[in-house]
Amino acid sequence: MADTPAGRIFDTMLLLAILTSVAVIMMESVQQLELKYYQLFHTLEWVFTILFTIEYVLRVWCSPKPEKYMRSFYGIIDLLCVVPTYLDFLLGGAHFLISIRILRMLRIFRIFKLVPFLHEGQQLTLALQRSRRKIAVFFFFILLLTIVLGSIMYVIESGHNSGFTSIPVSIYWAVVTLTTVGYGDIAPITPLGQAFSAVIMIMGYAIIAVPTGIVTAEMTRMRAGASVTVRTCPECHKDTFDEDATFCKYCGHHL
Amino acid sequence: MADTPAGRIFDTMLLLAILTSVAVIMMESVQQLELKYYQLFHTLEWVFTILFTIEYVLRVWCSPKPEKYMRSFYGIIDLLCVVPTYLDFLLGGAHFLISIRILRMLRIFRIFKLVPFLHEGQQLTLALQRSRRKIAVFFFFILLLTIVLGSIMYVIESGHNSGFTSIPVSIYWAVVTLTTVGYGDIAPITPLGQAFSAVIMIMGYAIIAVPTGIVTAEMTRMRAGASVTVRTCPECHKDTFDEDATFCKYCGHHL
Amino acid sequence: MADTPAGRIFDTMLLLAILTSVAVIMMESVQQLELKYYQLFHTLEWVFTILFTIEYVLRVWCSPKPEKYMRSFYGIIDLLCVVPTYLDFLLGGAHFLISIRILRMLRIFRIFKLVPFLHEGQQLTLALQRSRRKIAVFFFFILLLTIVLGSIMYVIESGHNSGFTSIPVSIYWAVVTLTTVGYGDIAPITPLGQAFSAVIMIMGYAIIAVPTGIVTAEMTRMRAGASVTVRTCPECHKDTFDEDATFCKYCGHHL
Amino acid sequence: MADTPAGRIFDTMLLLAILTSVAVIMMESVQQLELKYYQLFHTLEWVFTILFTIEYVLRVWCSPKPEKYMRSFYGIIDLLCVVPTYLDFLLGGAHFLISIRILRMLRIFRIFKLVPFLHEGQQLTLALQRSRRKIAVFFFFILLLTIVLGSIMYVIESGHNSGFTSIPVSIYWAVVTLTTVGYGDIAPITPLGQAFSAVIMIMGYAIIAVPTGIVTAEMTRMRAGASVTVRTCPECHKDTFDEDATFCKYCGHHL
Repeated sequence: MADTPAGRIFDTMLLLAILTSVAVIMMESVQQLELKYYQLFHTLEWVFTILFTIEYVLRVWCSPKPEKYMRSFYGIIDLLCVVPTYLDFLLGGAHFLISIRILRMLRIFRIFKLVPFLHEGQQLTLALQRSRRKIAVFFFFILLLTIVLGSIMYVIESGHNSGFTSIPVSIYWAVVTLTTVGYGDIAPITPLGQAFSAVIMIMGYAIIAVPTGIVTAEMTRMRAGASVTVRTCPECHKDTFDEDATFCKYCGHHL
Repeated sequence: MADTPAGRIFDTMLLLAILTSVAVIMMESVQQLELKYYQLFHTLEWVFTILFTIEYVLRVWCSPKPEKYMRSFYGIIDLLCVVPTYLDFLLGGAHFLISIRILRMLRIFRIFKLVPFLHEGQQLTLALQRSRRKIAVFFFFILLLTIVLGSIMYVIESGHNSGFTSIPVSIYWAVVTLTTVGYGDIAPITPLGQAFSAVIMIMGYAIIAVPTGIVTAEMTRMRAGASVTVRTCPECHKDTFDEDATFCKYCGHHL
Repeated sequence: MADTPAGRIFDTMLLLAILTSVAVIMMESVQQLELKYYQLFHTLEWVFTILFTIEYVLRVWCSPKPEKYMRSFYGIIDLLCVVPTYLDFLLGGAHFLISIRILRMLRIFRIFKLVPFLHEGQQLTLALQRSRRKIAVFFFFILLLTIVLGSIMYVIESGHNSGFTSIPVSIYWAVVTLTTVGYGDIAPITPLGQAFSAVIMIMGYAIIAVPTGIVTAEMTRMRAGASVTVRTCPECHKDTFDEDATFCKYCGHHL
Repeated sequence: MADTPAGRIFDTMLLLAILTSVAVIMMESVQQLELKYYQLFHTLEWVFTILFTIEYVLRVWCSPKPEKYMRSFYGIIDLLCVVPTYLDFLLGGAHFLISIRILRMLRIFRIFKLVPFLHEGQQLTLALQRSRRKIAVFFFFILLLTIVLGSIMYVIESGHNSGFTSIPVSIYWAVVTLTTVGYGDIAPITPLGQAFSAVIMIMGYAIIAVPTGIVTAEMTRMRAGASVTVRTCPECHKDTFDEDATFCKYCGHHL
């Protein structure tokens, strides 16, 4: 809310409530714990839901433009955090509601606005944002590549191997292989398939260099060149990159 | 075709036709769907084939130099997109034709010439192209390394382990391990084999740095220098990539 | 201890004792060896423990400020290296004591202070230290991401797949996938789960670029600037890392 | 041998002989092929061995300093390429000789001295060589880390999990995990083990950045700064980095 002491206490409390609430949802999913502490989890869930509902209502109330808040990213998240519990009560245990409830996690970001780490996050986001178009082109290329490679592997392996049952599954395998994840749930058996896979893997090895290169080049540039915080000395007009500088390192002028 | 409104509509239609056609081929490979919608898939396949055939014939017709088009990369792709269906009809279900049909995917590139993302793609291609020779040396080195490592592991593990049946299979394992894919379909069992594998993995960890370093250094240079603004010398018509150049480095012409 | 010849001999002896001691602990854990050489391992363990105890007592004795040594990082490590064997004797085979005993390994660092490689280690540590905050932000982001992705996969896969038993297990799976480790002990089975996993993997592929970018940019900067020759301002005694600096950037002193 | 046409023909023949010989060794290890073509493989093996023996004898003969050649790296490799077949004949099928025979692969390097790609290889080697000490420190750190992490996991998992049978095996697991290879032959089962593994993986994710950073920074430096081929213009005394430059890009002076 505000940067007042009361606001800070409220934020800390809210953070704790969110974390506990998320922890409860997680533990609920573990069957042994669910059987043992069903009543506790159920009660806590309702306590948090009511708390978050009150918070949501207050936020709408206090907001100078309630509609704008309700349509904002955080407004929707705040609403999605409470609705599932009510729906669960009405509809009776819809499974997919869990993943909506876990979105409460995202509310943490709202509080973290206060944290000094934000600057670092901004820099990272900036580097990614600037590389956005290059990364989009890269992803499109990866998509085409996996489709073509998956289809070829389907032709090679299907019939000999129980894993490659269809082209979509083979594409899934191509993604698993190209990203070097390598589950091993589907693996080539035929000599030709293994040889082709080896080529794909070494290719993936080179391809992994591309996004790294994009982001690194952007970050190096941000440090070396202009980007976020370049300060120019008013005396000698040279760039002094360092944020913590009090004096120009070239002419000694007090900044 | 052209940058006229009609050309744009045609391109959009073609893109849709290609995507649907590829989707149909993929779904055909899923047995459950194939059994259910066999007739639909069959009909669609023929519709698309006839459409693409007409398109191909028209392209040949309209082209000022038909032979040049037919021998070009896209000309061959365009032909390969329609031939398999006719062959399939004549020969009766040759399995490997699927992977040729999926090459229709590549036709998307033709349309994407129009997209503004192309510039980004060009930059990526340029960075890769410049690192071409370094990457070739690197791949040759990886090939030798995996052959030697695979052979050593074959000697260590074969006899104790059902996975390492022959040197080629062991080389496949070496590629899977060195690229950090790690399926786990073949894994060392003997203590010596596991120790040797650990060494290979840590080696792979360092080797992964090499292609990344190559591409990143190239990209950083492209940013630091000029790259984005490739300048062509008006005298010798060669590209001079450096922004700070006052004279062409090939012919000495004042830029 | 000291840089005298006697000190060097002592250090070499100590290094050997530490390495042998760690090797014995490792071999003890291998059942076949344990059964065969039980008596030898047992005797060696006591020999090393008594040696290290004497060393510890001497260090406390010789230290000008014994309390300060005992509370220091190395003082605690030195103590933890001998206590487990005595506890083992008193309590009778507590399993978790092994991992404490293996901490003897850390004592090697003490000796390696002498090695000329230290400078390189310092540089690496410096690069990591400077990127500390960015890496912290990155880890926090990864944590949130894996929780959200794990929960979504739990909703998609649980019921169809015996692997995704609870949200914490699904989060573990998300970490395994996003870091491209990919054990394959838990793998998606449903088509939707596989498609979603493919997206996660390609995402992980891009995300891996971020920490690499951070550290590389920091290292490139260290090279490009000064780093190797950290200069300390004679006026304010702060480190000024840039080689091209003529004036201290903190106090404006002419260097 | 020499750069004469005859020398080139000889080198090409030798390259073919080496490649065929290596291919034969590989195919011999595949049981199906071995059973079928035993006689052919056996004959070829002897043909190549005799050829390489003649070559070795000639090289010793022609060498101005035969002893120096025999003690050189290539001299030893050349000898190791022929000895195993004779030993095999005398001792009767020693299994480990295969891996020595496959060292013939290394002889290819001798021929590749001629190839223009060598310059690229030199650059890569230089970048790695300069980072040598940093990489050594890094590997030492990884070694310590995997020993400590492996031991902790052994304490956590052993007893509950059939995979973590001893500390050395757990260290092997730690290497497999930290390098993101992830076979899945050994995987954590206990909740605590899975949580700890997740931490190790994310750690490995950050650690992978370190060698990449080292090599990339070195390569960027080589490009940007001095390293291999910086040429200084004799007219304006500025550095002109590009190897292919005929004219200085700053003042137009003919180089």
